[in-house]
Amino acid sequence: MQFLKEGERIDDLQRDGLSIIQKEKAFSFGVDAVLIANFTQVKKDEKVLDIGTGTGIIPILLSAKTEASSIVGVEIQDEMAEMANRSVKMNSLDEKIEIVCDDIKEFAKSNLSSFDVVVSNPPYFKHASAMISDNSSKMISRHEIKINVEELFLSANRLLKPKGRFYLIHRPDRMVDIFYEARKNKLEVKQAKMVYSRQGEKAKLIVLECIKGAGSEIRWQKPLFIYEDNGEYSKEIYEIYENSKITSFSK
Amino acid sequence: MQFLKEGERIDDLQRDGLSIIQKEKAFSFGVDAVLIANFTQVKKDEKVLDIGTGTGIIPILLSAKTEASSIVGVEIQDEMAEMANRSVKMNSLDEKIEIVCDDIKEFAKSNLSSFDVVVSNPPYFKHASAMISDNSSKMISRHEIKINVEELFLSANRLLKPKGRFYLIHRPDRMVDIFYEARKNKLEVKQAKMVYSRQGEKAKLIVLECIKGAGSEIRWQKPLFIYEDNGEYSKEIYEIYENSKITSFSK
Repeated sequence: MQFLKEGERIDDLQRDGLSIIQKEKAFSFGVDAVLIANFTQVKKDEKVLDIGTGTGIIPILLSAKTEASSIVGVEIQDEMAEMANRSVKMNSLDEKIEIVCDDIKEFAKSNLSSFDVVVSNPPYFKHASAMISDNSSKMISRHEIKINVEELFLSANRLLKPKGRFYLIHRPDRMVDIFYEARKNKLEVKQAKMVYSRQGEKAKLIVLECIKGAGSEIRWQKPLFIYEDNGEYSKEIYEIYENSKITSFSK
Repeated sequence: MQFLKEGERIDDLQRDGLSIIQKEKAFSFGVDAVLIANFTQVKKDEKVLDIGTGTGIIPILLSAKTEASSIVGVEIQDEMAEMANRSVKMNSLDEKIEIVCDDIKEFAKSNLSSFDVVVSNPPYFKHASAMISDNSSKMISRHEIKINVEELFLSANRLLKPKGRFYLIHRPDRMVDIFYEARKNKLEVKQAKMVYSRQGEKAKLIVLECIKGAGSEIRWQKPLFIYEDNGEYSKEIYEIYENSKITSFSK
């Protein structure tokens, strides 16, 4: 197939005929990307930017559910960016989605107040110095090697127009880091939703909407449970997946 | 009864023979005080301080479940402090519990690094200027008239010894204010627990353990559900109440 390189595969997104290229040895998109794309609200003709777009999954999902005028996915790893770009072309979305290979910290400096919406499924884990030598794609996607929470919020603040929205998915144990940087960077957390694997377990993920320059106080949404007690996916997850069979729950 | 004044009543705490004086027109303790007292960990011979002790419910509950060397309850409203003091005497706890009528902001300045544990069930609501004229006991207990989140964390930081613990119950919609001030005042949130009324509803309360000078990252506990789907109290709430009949769920 013309779009594929060695070690890659095409996964059917079971939505509007969309598909995506992924690579066995690299980072595959997970439930996290689907959750944050679902949570993100984009109005007609808004300009959207995805920080650390990886395979390009979030722009591709957002292109299906929104009427954004344009969606830019910025990815620091050139091999990932190149692959995401082929996914965009394969889906004939190149008029709507642009993949840029750049460091978001640099990109933000030259694109001040340019976007209505910024979204991110960033690396979740702090960077231990023991890991410095491992610069693999999976490490960069999961650990704060190229960007940390502080830089993420600083960049989002720079990129967003006044009252622009920043949508983020992260781990609840990083919530002080996140809320502290959100307040510091005037991206006030306005909506939040806890995600649990199932009843009786600890929170697994949190999704947030921050608004640039808004007043304080969070509106908490009802929590989301991914599984029912019997191990089946919950009704809400099925709704999010639109009864599709996306099964790459790999993160 | 010698301990009671007009308009007051004695409520049986159904625990170790303890009881408490409350007043119809003033603020009665609620499930919040019971939850935070239950969440608070006190080791043998530690010194404990309760910020805004109100009826004195938290010191009285902590005296039953811990081996604290002393528990100080600070209350700014003199009528409440005087009533709390009578509750302490009525329970013959005056050797263990001291009620001080003072502004905690002043008290903290003259009691630096004096406590192992600080606990608080503070006012939850921001202070709207329209309320300034209403200085009733209920208003002061519920609204940030005498103390706000910033002053609360500043005071807790001053009062605590290094590595001292601050236990707090609050509303989830104030979580950015709380986490921001916690980080700013070097009281790092180490444990957190969300409290829901019941399944399928938004979070109602949050209980936190902050440690002075600790590193970042929160350990989230399993969430607590107060009610079962059938409207009965949950098993966990029954355990917290030790099958007692404390029914003043008034907050």
